[in-house]
Formats: sequence, structure tokens, C-alpha cells
Amino acid sequence: MKSRIKKCVTQLRVLGLDAIVLSNPVNASYLSGFRDADGYLLVTREMELVYFTNFIYAYEAQALDVWKVVIAKGNIFKQLSEAIKSRNLHRIGFEAKNIPYLEYSKIKQYLSGYRVELCETIDFIERIRVIKEPREISLIRKAIEISKDAFDFSAEIRDRAMTEKQFNIEIEKFLRIRGSNSVAFPAIVASGANSAIPHHLPGEDKLLTENFFLIDLGAKYYDYCADLTRVFTWGKITPFFKRIYDIVRKAQDLSIKKIRDGVKAKEVDLAARSFIEKKGYGKFFGHGVGHGVGREVHEIPFIGPKSEEVLRQGMVVAIEPAIYLKGKFGIRIEDMVLVGKNKGEVLSGNLCR
Amino acid sequence: MKSRIKKCVTQLRVLGLDAIVLSNPVNASYLSGFRDADGYLLVTREMELVYFTNFIYAYEAQALDVWKVVIAKGNIFKQLSEAIKSRNLHRIGFEAKNIPYLEYSKIKQYLSGYRVELCETIDFIERIRVIKEPREISLIRKAIEISKDAFDFSAEIRDRAMTEKQFNIEIEKFLRIRGSNSVAFPAIVASGANSAIPHHLPGEDKLLTENFFLIDLGAKYYDYCADLTRVFTWGKITPFFKRIYDIVRKAQDLSIKKIRDGVKAKEVDLAARSFIEKKGYGKFFGHGVGHGVGREVHEIPFIGPKSEEVLRQGMVVAIEPAIYLKGKFGIRIEDMVLVGKNKGEVLSGNLCR
Repeated sequence: MKSRIKKCVTQLRVLGLDAIVLSNPVNASYLSGFRDADGYLLVTREMELVYFTNFIYAYEAQALDVWKVVIAKGNIFKQLSEAIKSRNLHRIGFEAKNIPYLEYSKIKQYLSGYRVELCETIDFIERIRVIKEPREISLIRKAIEISKDAFDFSAEIRDRAMTEKQFNIEIEKFLRIRGSNSVAFPAIVASGANSAIPHHLPGEDKLLTENFFLIDLGAKYYDYCADLTRVFTWGKITPFFKRIYDIVRKAQDLSIKKIRDGVKAKEVDLAARSFIEKKGYGKFFGHGVGHGVGREVHEIPFIGPKSEEVLRQGMVVAIEPAIYLKGKFGIRIEDMVLVGKNKGEVLSGNLCR
Repeated sequence: MKSRIKKCVTQLRVLGLDAIVLSNPVNASYLSGFRDADGYLLVTREMELVYFTNFIYAYEAQALDVWKVVIAKGNIFKQLSEAIKSRNLHRIGFEAKNIPYLEYSKIKQYLSGYRVELCETIDFIERIRVIKEPREISLIRKAIEISKDAFDFSAEIRDRAMTEKQFNIEIEKFLRIRGSNSVAFPAIVASGANSAIPHHLPGEDKLLTENFFLIDLGAKYYDYCADLTRVFTWGKITPFFKRIYDIVRKAQDLSIKKIRDGVKAKEVDLAARSFIEKKGYGKFFGHGVGHGVGREVHEIPFIGPKSEEVLRQGMVVAIEPAIYLKGKFGIRIEDMVLVGKNKGEVLSGNLCR
């Protein structure tokens, strides 16, 4: 934790901030090891951490020695503001992507009359989180391993004539029994034409009605997520289905081959996108080709046609080109890749494709 | 849906607003029947609904006929702002509790140069949602019924020497197999002294180490939540444990007896709180006595010592007094009550206590 806090303080200095108020529990958790919970974390340039929370989390928060804990009786924003004043902090960062307008207003109101500048920050802690430490990569590898087992399990149970919903229940239970603390996101199980709906909600359709289905799932292992997608087929598939599948798979290969330290995210996107466009299916692929994965299942860097980000060694990204043919079927293939100096390592490499 | 939209429009007129921008997906879903998804819903005084979303939800959103759907290619805030300008809307409400500061800023920025007033609203749709329609009450009853079955199931499997985590997995699978679309919240399973931690995360402790444990669970049935808590005991419990249990149970009865149309929420809180205080355990009960339950597991009315709300016929609330004795045990008993004209109906009445 200490090295993370140091990086945070270095960034405060670079931006000329006296402190930052973290409202995103994922970020507070990253700096402290404390579970995601309701609360505000004040981090000062002097490396002081003060966590403001309520009775509900008091027992647990007090057990950590990384920070001072203030249990707000009454107004949490008032106590936070008083802590800012009593420490003579004047330039305070806040997390603009995350803090609700009302909470920002309350803090501002409690600080009125005090000389203070509230400074919008974007991805302040996320920019530290984006480069994964070796221990974090191990946890991600483990989350992927559990997820891969869940795909094998899916292949085993697919002929049991279950509905999408029943299948989803079995998969999520499997993930958790195998050590996933929770699931990284609700697993998508999409039979037949439902696979053309990117975030389909599992419903009452039976899986065996068609001879293919799409599964998008991820374990969460000690706070670290996996995110993988496969389309399963059996019996005879049409040449058209096979052609679309091969286009998506080739597109994914092209994107993955681009991955190395220093490459622009939009180049990685373009590799898959231009291939899909060339084949005539550009308008059926409407989302970015990928995104970072870590404590959140979708985090920076976002890899799309308008991305300004550059991939760096130690980032972990999911690459998921797709073609969605409404009323027919959708193909999405998603793997996770660790960005290395000269190339990417496909962490989900031995998962069937 | 139409009557909900009408209520929304009536409130717009009362507040002198031309339109409201809904950023909370639960509220957009309430007005449209559409799943909770990423998107912004503009509702105008002319009863026009325009939903701004992206490619991911395009297929599904377009299938609904309650609204016009704009699929944002590029910037969703820009398109929203243009829709506001082209309709000559000038006083626009936004959801201050929910909208992130950055998104508010973007909308404001795209509207700069145009005569517009962005007006903070709080609980705008929530105040409509707070009074449940008969159909909503039926769905809540069903969510409670499934949850009650899960308590019976818990009693059946409690002697299988499982850990809290394993138990939690079994409970959540049970809820979903019985028709819960998802769970209303991650079930709390707290063995022994863990029960003194209000939002304990299920861990590796075995349930049979002690002769009591606390379970707080809720099904979610077609968007409607349940939230119920019981402490299970077996074998010989100490007179002290029994005394604390009886205090909490009596406190809950006192609060429930207060419930009727027109009662102040803080009176309901005070009934339980003053009794617990009189018995000498006031400082071990640090949260409000209850909260509304509906599409969200915690929603208005919040029932605590500082509540300004008044309970009205058709509200559904959870009443959950507690005493948390750190390192020893915690007792929390939670039931759901429908507010009636002259008294409350305990919806979870036939659940063992």
C-alpha cells in the first residue's frame, strides 16, 4: 500500500494539490486494502490518510492501521470540510467522474468562507491503477484461470436443455465455488439471435433451440476481474456463420498483434475495425475494440477509434471485436492481454477458440 | 407507464420546469419498463420521452414504443443538449443526488450560450415511486415470499458445516432458482461475533463454530426487492443473548405499532430507539431504524432520528432495529411493512422470529 500512497502523493505535487478527496470506493480500497464501502478518503501531501465513514463500516474501518478513521455522526461532508480547514489545505482535488453533483455541492457549501480551490481531477488514482503490479497480475491470472474453468464447465453442461437464466445461475455458482469472491459482472448467456444483443439479459429461451450460444463471463478474485467471451457451436453451422466467425477472429488477432509498449490505443482499435469494415460489416460493430481490466471490469485504457491513450507495459486489456447481425446472430470473441515491452501476452491463451 | 409519466409531468408543472433529464437508470426504467441501462432520459412537459443511449443498448431500447430513442454516435451530452435547444426548453431539472459532477459539467458546457437554467432536483421520480401501485405491492409480496423460503432453506441446511461464503453461495442460488431475477443485495451471512458487524462480508468462518448466526437477505422479483434479517440460534443460548434478542424484538414491535398513514418517520424511529436506550444499549445501535424498499433496496423514506419525512399509505418500509456488541454478537431483526391508513401490515409476518 505504501508505494501506492507515495505515487498518489507524487501526483498531488505534480498537480500542485494539497490533498485529494476520493469518493470512488474502488480507489480508496486500492490505497488501503479496505473493502469497497461508503465513505470518503482524504489523502494529503503529507501522506496522511483520513477516512470518513458511518456507523455501518466503523468496526471494520477502525481495524486498519493505514488511516485515521472519522466516524461521522451527523454530516459526513461537514466533518470532511472541517478536517480540510484544520489542516490548512487550500487546493483540493476531487474525482469529477465519480462524485455526485449534490455531494460536491455540499462539500463546497461547508467550505464557503474558507479560501479553497476545488480542482476537478479525472482518473487521478485510475492512472496509478492502470499499471499493474506483479501481485495484481497474479490475481488477474487467477481470475482468468477460474473463468476458463467456467467455460469448460459450460461446455460440459450445455446439453442439459437449460434456459439462459438457469445456465447463468449454474455458471455464477461455479465461479464462486471455485474461489471467485463475487462475479466481475452478471454473466451474459445469449442463445441464438439473442447473441446479437451486446449486453443481453439471460431470459427464458432454451439454449438447445439453436446450435450456438454466446457466453461472456468473468470471475473476480480478491478484487481483480476477468472478462472473456466465447461463442459455442455444435452440430452443423452454416458457411455464413463460419465466415462471420472467422472475420471476428482474424480481426481480434490483428488487434492483439499491435499490442506493445508505446502503441496508441486507437491503432489497436483500427487494426480490427478496418478489417471488419473491409469485409463489409463495419456498421455491425458499434463499440470500441477493448478496455482495461483490473479492480473494475471496465477501466482505463479504453480502446476505441477516438482513444487518446497509449498502451504501456504492465497494463491489462480485454480485446473484444464483434459483429452483431440483428435477428440472426452475433459473434464476439474476447481475450485478455498483458501489455509487454515488445508484444502482448494473451493471458487467456489456452482458452478454446 | 402512462400514469407514471403523467405524474412526472404534473410535478414538472408544479416546479415550473420545462423538462427533466433523468440520469438514474432506475428512474428511467420506472417510467418506461426498460431495463436499467446506461443512458439519459429527457422527459418534457409535453409528455415526450427521448432516451439517449449508445450502440450497446440500441437494439433493445428501440424495441420499446414509449419513447423516441437517440443512439449517440460520439457525444451523448452534445446530442442531449441539442435536443433541449431544438425543443426550446429553458428550465431543465437534473437529478442532483445521482448525476456525476463531470456529466453535469458537460451538459452545462454544451448548453453555454443558450438561455437555460439547470435546476437541482432531489428525489423527483423517487417521490412518485415512494407510493407503490397495487401491482408493485404484488411484486414486493412475491419477492418477500421467495426470501422467506430462503430462510426456511437456511434452517434446513445450517448443520452442513459450511463456511459463511459457502452458505451465501447456496442461499443466492436458491433465491435465483426460485425466481429471483438477481439478488436485491449480496446476502449477509455472519457467524458468531461477525454478527456485530452491520454489513459483514461472508468469509471463511464456519457457521457451526458458534450456535447462532445472522442472515440478511433479499430476493429481487421483476425489479422489486425484499430485505429481511433473522438471527438463527440452536442449542443453549445464554440468558444475556436472550435478553438482548428480546430487547431488539420488542423495539421492533414498538416501531411497527407506530406505523400508519400520517405518522412522522422520526416517531417510528424514536419508538425503537428510546426503548433500546432505556435498556442501556443506545450507543450500540448506530443506524436508522428503517428505510423504504422498492426498485431499490434502500430508498426513501429513510427512517432515522433526523428524518423529516411522513409515512403515507402505500409506502413499503423495512424496520430493522439492532444492537451490535463488538466481539460478542449482534442482533438485528428486519421485517417489511406496508403502510396502511390506520396501521401497518407486516408483509413478512409469517416468517419465524
